Amino acid sequence: MVYTAIMGHGTVGSGVAQIMIGHESLVKEKIKDDIEVKYILDLRDFERLPYSDKFIKDFNIILNDDDVKIVVEVMGGINPAFDFVKACLEKGKSVVTSNKELVAAKGAELLKIAEEKNVNFLFEASVGGAIPILRPMAQCLAANDIYKITGILNGTTNFILNKMIVDNTDFDVALKLAQEKGYAERNPESDIEGLDACRKICILASLGFGKHVYPSQVKTEGISNITLKDVEYADNFGYVIKLICYASKNKNGTINAYVRPTLVSKDNILSSVNGVYNAIMVTGDACDNVMFYGRGAGKMPTASAVVADVIDCAKHLTARKFLSWSEGNDGYVENGDEKTALYILAKSENYDKLCLDTEKIFGKDIAVIKNKYSNEIAFITGTELNSVLEEKIKQLNADSIKCMHILI
Amino acid sequence: MVYTAIMGHGTVGSGVAQIMIGHESLVKEKIKDDIEVKYILDLRDFERLPYSDKFIKDFNIILNDDDVKIVVEVMGGINPAFDFVKACLEKGKSVVTSNKELVAAKGAELLKIAEEKNVNFLFEASVGGAIPILRPMAQCLAANDIYKITGILNGTTNFILNKMIVDNTDFDVALKLAQEKGYAERNPESDIEGLDACRKICILASLGFGKHVYPSQVKTEGISNITLKDVEYADNFGYVIKLICYASKNKNGTINAYVRPTLVSKDNILSSVNGVYNAIMVTGDACDNVMFYGRGAGKMPTASAVVADVIDCAKHLTARKFLSWSEGNDGYVENGDEKTALYILAKSENYDKLCLDTEKIFGKDIAVIKNKYSNEIAFITGTELNSVLEEKIKQLNADSIKCMHILI
Repeated sequence: MVYTAIMGHGTVGSGVAQIMIGHESLVKEKIKDDIEVKYILDLRDFERLPYSDKFIKDFNIILNDDDVKIVVEVMGGINPAFDFVKACLEKGKSVVTSNKELVAAKGAELLKIAEEKNVNFLFEASVGGAIPILRPMAQCLAANDIYKITGILNGTTNFILNKMIVDNTDFDVALKLAQEKGYAERNPESDIEGLDACRKICILASLGFGKHVYPSQVKTEGISNITLKDVEYADNFGYVIKLICYASKNKNGTINAYVRPTLVSKDNILSSVNGVYNAIMVTGDACDNVMFYGRGAGKMPTASAVVADVIDCAKHLTARKFLSWSEGNDGYVENGDEKTALYILAKSENYDKLCLDTEKIFGKDIAVIKNKYSNEIAFITGTELNSVLEEKIKQLNADSIKCMHILI
Repeated sequence: MVYTAIMGHGTVGSGVAQIMIGHESLVKEKIKDDIEVKYILDLRDFERLPYSDKFIKDFNIILNDDDVKIVVEVMGGINPAFDFVKACLEKGKSVVTSNKELVAAKGAELLKIAEEKNVNFLFEASVGGAIPILRPMAQCLAANDIYKITGILNGTTNFILNKMIVDNTDFDVALKLAQEKGYAERNPESDIEGLDACRKICILASLGFGKHVYPSQVKTEGISNITLKDVEYADNFGYVIKLICYASKNKNGTINAYVRPTLVSKDNILSSVNGVYNAIMVTGDACDNVMFYGRGAGKMPTASAVVADVIDCAKHLTARKFLSWSEGNDGYVENGDEKTALYILAKSENYDKLCLDTEKIFGKDIAVIKNKYSNEIAFITGTELNSVLEEKIKQLNADSIKCMHILI
C-alpha cells in the first residue's frame, strides 16, 4: 500500500482528488499496488464531499506521518508551498507539484534535496498542463544536443491573440471574453504581462540546458501593447502574432532567453496553435524540430499530468535521476546580439520622407505596407544582427516607432 | 562498462554508429557509465570507416558474447531480424529496434520474452522517427483513459499530398519529386499504399489500448487514387487531404482501426502538418487532445531515437515494464458502423437530375460545388452513420461516385 497526501484542494487539487479517489482502480492497475489518499490539506471546509473525512488543516500531520510517501503540492505560490515541499523532501517523502512559480524560483534547490534524500521531485504538470514535455525532453531526446526551445506557453494570451486575429476584436474586448470564459483571472497581469509564460520557459531552459534560469534573468514582455492594427499588418505580411517564449544556447556557455510577442510565419506550425492550446518546439542536433502540443491549463488536463507523476513516483519510490539541473548564476542569461528580423510600424508627419528613408535604409526588397492616410508605414526587415537593426531604426527619424521581433 | 552491438549498417544503422561512436562522450555522460559498440553486423564490407575493425558477418559472435548486454537491430524486415531479436532476448540481452515491420507483426511475442527474461525490448524509433511518442503515451498519459489515436505517420505520402496542395502538381509528378529527393523508395508501394503507416498505427494502438493489433486487421487504403481535382475541391470546402491513421476504442472492448486518405478541416492542427513531418494526436478522457510532431524519418532523427532507447536501456539494465501489451485475437478490430461525414464527387450524364437528387437525398444545407461543364458535383455530407450514408449514395444513382471520409 502506498499512502499519499494532497496539499491544496483548489481547481487542480480537486481534479487530482477526483482521479486518485474517483478512479482509484485505474490508478491501482497502473501501479500494480494499492494506493490511497490519506490526507487532503486545505484551510477551507469541504463537508459535502464523499471524501470529506480526509481533510486536515495542520501540515504537520502529513509531515510526521511516516506512512505518507508521496505528497502532492497543488497550492500554488511560493509561500508556504516552498517550506512545505522542502520539509517533505527532507523527511524522505517524494513530492509531485504543478506549481510553476515554485519550480521556476526554487527548482535547483529542491532537486538537490530530493537527490540527497534519494526521493523524487516531479513537476511535469508545471509546464504545458497535460502535455508530456519534461520527461520526453529529458529521456527521449537524450541522444540530442538540445540547443533551442520555442514555446507558446500561456493559454490566456494565446486565446486573446487568436480572438484578435480571427474575430478582429480589440485587445480589451478579447481580454474581457477570456475572463468571462474563465481563461483569465480577474487580475490578469501575470498572464498578460508574460510572467506565467516566463516561469515556464525558465523550467524548460533549466532542464534542457542543465542550469537553473531564474525568472528575473529572462527579459519578459507581455501582449498589452498589441493592437488590432498590428495583427492586421502581420496577417498581410503572412504572419500571426504569438507570445513566444524562447531559450537558446550560445557558444560561450551562456544562453539567450526571453518572452515577447513575436511574429510567426504562417508556414511555421507554431502559427497554427490556437485558442487556449500550448505548444513547445524543441530543437536538437539530431532530432531537428520536435513539437509537443495540447491543453496547457484546465482542471483535468493538469490534474492528469499530476497523477501521471504520482503513478511514476509510486512505481519508483526510490529516486529517478533523470530530472535534474544545477544552480544558476549571474551572467548565465546573456541575451547577446542575436540575428533577428523585425516588424516595424513607423509614423511621421513627414510621411513622404519616411517612405523614402525606409527604402534607403532598409533596402528596396523589403515587404512594405504604406498608409498615407494615417502617415504610417509598416514593414518587415531583412535578417540582421539586432544591433545593426537598432542603428538603422535610429536613422529612420520617425515620430513614433513600434517594433516586434520575427521568429526566424 | 556496457557493451553493445549494432545489427545492420544501412541508413539508420550508420547514424546510430555515428552517434554511439562519434559522440561517445555525450552518451557516456548521459549514462554515467562507459559504453562501447563492440560489434557491427553487416554482410557488406566497410573498409574505410574509422571503426571498420568492429564489423562482423556472423550473428553468433554477438549472440554468444555474454559481455554484450544491449543489441541494436536496425536491419529492417522480418527475416532474419525476428530470429535474431528473439535469440538475443532469450539469451538475456536487451534489444532496441527501429523496425516497425517487426514490431507490428511480432511485438506481443517479443515483449513477452523480454518480460520473462527481465530485459528490455524498446522501439521508440519504430513510430514517428525522432518524435517521442511511445514512452510519453505509456508514462505521461498514464492517468488517462486513452480512447482515440489519430496520426499522420508516413512522411512520403504527406510530402506528396502537400506538394499537390501547395504547388498544384499531379500525383505522379509529386511522387517523382519525392523519389528524387530521396523521400520515396524506387518501389514506393509500401508508402503510397499505406502499408508503412498501417504498421505504425498497429504499434500505437497495441500500446495505447493494451492488445496487439496486426497489420492484416487494419483496413488500409493508400493515396494513389487522389487527384488534383479532389485536392482542389477539398480546399474549397476548407479541408486538406491527409493520409490519416486512426484507432479508437469501442464500448464492447473491440476497436476501430484504419488507414485512409481523409479530409481534415483547416481548423484542425493536423491539417498544418506539412512536408515529411509526422504527427500523432492522442485523445484521453482527462488530457483531451495532445499532439506530438516532428520528423518521422531520416537517418539522424531516427538514429537519435534509437540511441535514446540505448541510453535508457543502459541506465536500467533490468527491465522497465511500462511497454507491454497482450496478444491480439480475431475480431478485436471490428470497424463497426461509425459516425462519419463524407466528401462525395459524383458524375452523371443526367447532370440536372444529379443536382436535384443530391439536394433531395442529402439535404439543402450541405456544402456543394457544381460543375456543369464536366457534369460533376462535389459535396460534403452531414455527420451520420456510415451505413445511412452508404444507403443514400446508392439512391443517388450517379454514373461514377468517389467518396472520402472527413475527420470528425
